[in-house]
Amino acid sequence: MQKEDQFIQHLAKTFPALSPLVGIGDDCAVIPTDTDEAWVVTADALVEGIHFLKEEITPQDLGYKTVAVSISDVASMGGLPKYAFLSLAIPKNTDYTWLCAMMEGIKAACEKWEVQLLGGDTVGSKRDLFLNLTLIGTAKRARIKYRSGAKVGDIICVSGPLGDAAGGLKALQERAIKTPEVEYLLRAHFHPEIDLEQGIALAAQEGVHAMMDLSDGLDCDLKRLLKSSEKGAIIETSQLPLSKAFLKACQDNKWDRIPLALSGGEDYRLLITLSQDAFDTLHQTLPLQAIGRITESRDLLYQKEGQTLHLELAHFEHF
Amino acid sequence: MQKEDQFIQHLAKTFPALSPLVGIGDDCAVIPTDTDEAWVVTADALVEGIHFLKEEITPQDLGYKTVAVSISDVASMGGLPKYAFLSLAIPKNTDYTWLCAMMEGIKAACEKWEVQLLGGDTVGSKRDLFLNLTLIGTAKRARIKYRSGAKVGDIICVSGPLGDAAGGLKALQERAIKTPEVEYLLRAHFHPEIDLEQGIALAAQEGVHAMMDLSDGLDCDLKRLLKSSEKGAIIETSQLPLSKAFLKACQDNKWDRIPLALSGGEDYRLLITLSQDAFDTLHQTLPLQAIGRITESRDLLYQKEGQTLHLELAHFEHF
Repeated sequence: MQKEDQFIQHLAKTFPALSPLVGIGDDCAVIPTDTDEAWVVTADALVEGIHFLKEEITPQDLGYKTVAVSISDVASMGGLPKYAFLSLAIPKNTDYTWLCAMMEGIKAACEKWEVQLLGGDTVGSKRDLFLNLTLIGTAKRARIKYRSGAKVGDIICVSGPLGDAAGGLKALQERAIKTPEVEYLLRAHFHPEIDLEQGIALAAQEGVHAMMDLSDGLDCDLKRLLKSSEKGAIIETSQLPLSKAFLKACQDNKWDRIPLALSGGEDYRLLITLSQDAFDTLHQTLPLQAIGRITESRDLLYQKEGQTLHLELAHFEHF
Repeated sequence: MQKEDQFIQHLAKTFPALSPLVGIGDDCAVIPTDTDEAWVVTADALVEGIHFLKEEITPQDLGYKTVAVSISDVASMGGLPKYAFLSLAIPKNTDYTWLCAMMEGIKAACEKWEVQLLGGDTVGSKRDLFLNLTLIGTAKRARIKYRSGAKVGDIICVSGPLGDAAGGLKALQERAIKTPEVEYLLRAHFHPEIDLEQGIALAAQEGVHAMMDLSDGLDCDLKRLLKSSEKGAIIETSQLPLSKAFLKACQDNKWDRIPLALSGGEDYRLLITLSQDAFDTLHQTLPLQAIGRITESRDLLYQKEGQTLHLELAHFEHF
């Protein structure tokens, strides 16, 4: 288990949310109101030197990404994002023009998703830039999807290609030659697309049983969903949706594509489990890629064309 | 003007909140609901090396203070705090026991004020510990007090002694001898009391026109209130409430008490402007100390027994 998960489990035990509140452990906390609406709330922190390097990301992309990662959390619960609160801890030597450009990126992202930035905090920082965005959304309470809802026999789907952002990060780390394909992966890393409309559309369907967003890699995040649902899964790796750019860059740079697609973080795609019936209807209108099935046994198995695979997967470790 | 204020003004212009939402510039943002209740939301960031030193503050006090500073913001709008979201960026070498002790401090503070911690984010940090708490409270919309409500002739009050926390910080910086008085000031610095009940009681009164909390020192914060209300003020420095411990420590350490009480940060007392009638009634039951009057002219004047004072005040600068 990751250290972060251990600490979050410690937190969840220390702070049990009282029913009907849903607290620590899903992508968002859920706060019911007196009507059939609920509030969904998420917070995401980005730290210089851990989540980004100022020399590599443009300030506009950093601003965009700060908002995008939280939009993804709200999307994965089926919520509509509404209000944002931004805290910034800014080192003394930060260039004011750079800071304003970052705020332009935040503004553009807020406008894209019709979110209002209502407040936050700006403080100094000794050395590194820290950002935290808390995002409040609304959702029909009965429609909210959780990690815990997966049922045996469910089809496991993702809403888009995997590994593009991880490929972008790897290209940066290895200073890979900037082919058009590598440029595409860098774009996925710096400026991820978020499947907000799909999240809202999927939340409206009863046959959709569980959802979460992919932020730390399919392997890691699916394990969280399975743990929460008390289920297992079989994933058919030949079904993983991989972009042409990702495949080409893997070939060019001799990257092992399946481990990279499974363990790379920051896909920000939706991970969905749904009934066969719901899948049969929904995959005609939504970009759902079936990659496996929920099982009774508590294990996560990877197969390739029916044969069990033994994969050594690295992990995206925060601390 | 402080750099932080400049940047916040830039933000307020970049992100104008659409009426009836109240956005950047008050202690909390206000989000109306369909009922007469509104949500009040605040975020506060604390950064190692800027707001605290791990060697000086106990982890329990740091946890307490992280919650307390946000409770103070909600109190100053007249709100009742409800739900908290904590983001932590944790350096690799952080001692797990220390971290759990800090969470105990957060838990104790949440229990004290009946706040539920529902979520947040835990990530790594390269070097410094960073904490952000976003706190959501509720308030009757019609009762919420803003910085902008001060009226000419209002009595200006504070809800408790000034300068204790600033004295504690100065004692730390100067390694002052730890007399009982200095210990008292250190306690105010590390473990500030918050006037939540007073905030709620004052919000219920129509004659109370403006409120905010004192986080950056009376001089700095009152100027913010005056700017927001488009008014001026005369402060009678002989009326500033100063604790016995503060007076003794100032004498012992040759600190200039009036500038320290006016410009020292982290009092977390309420700054209130109210009508003479409201004051006459309320000061009998609430610990309100009258320190001056709101004036028509846009200036902030300090007097001592009626004579104008010319003070050189340092400022609590964030970045």
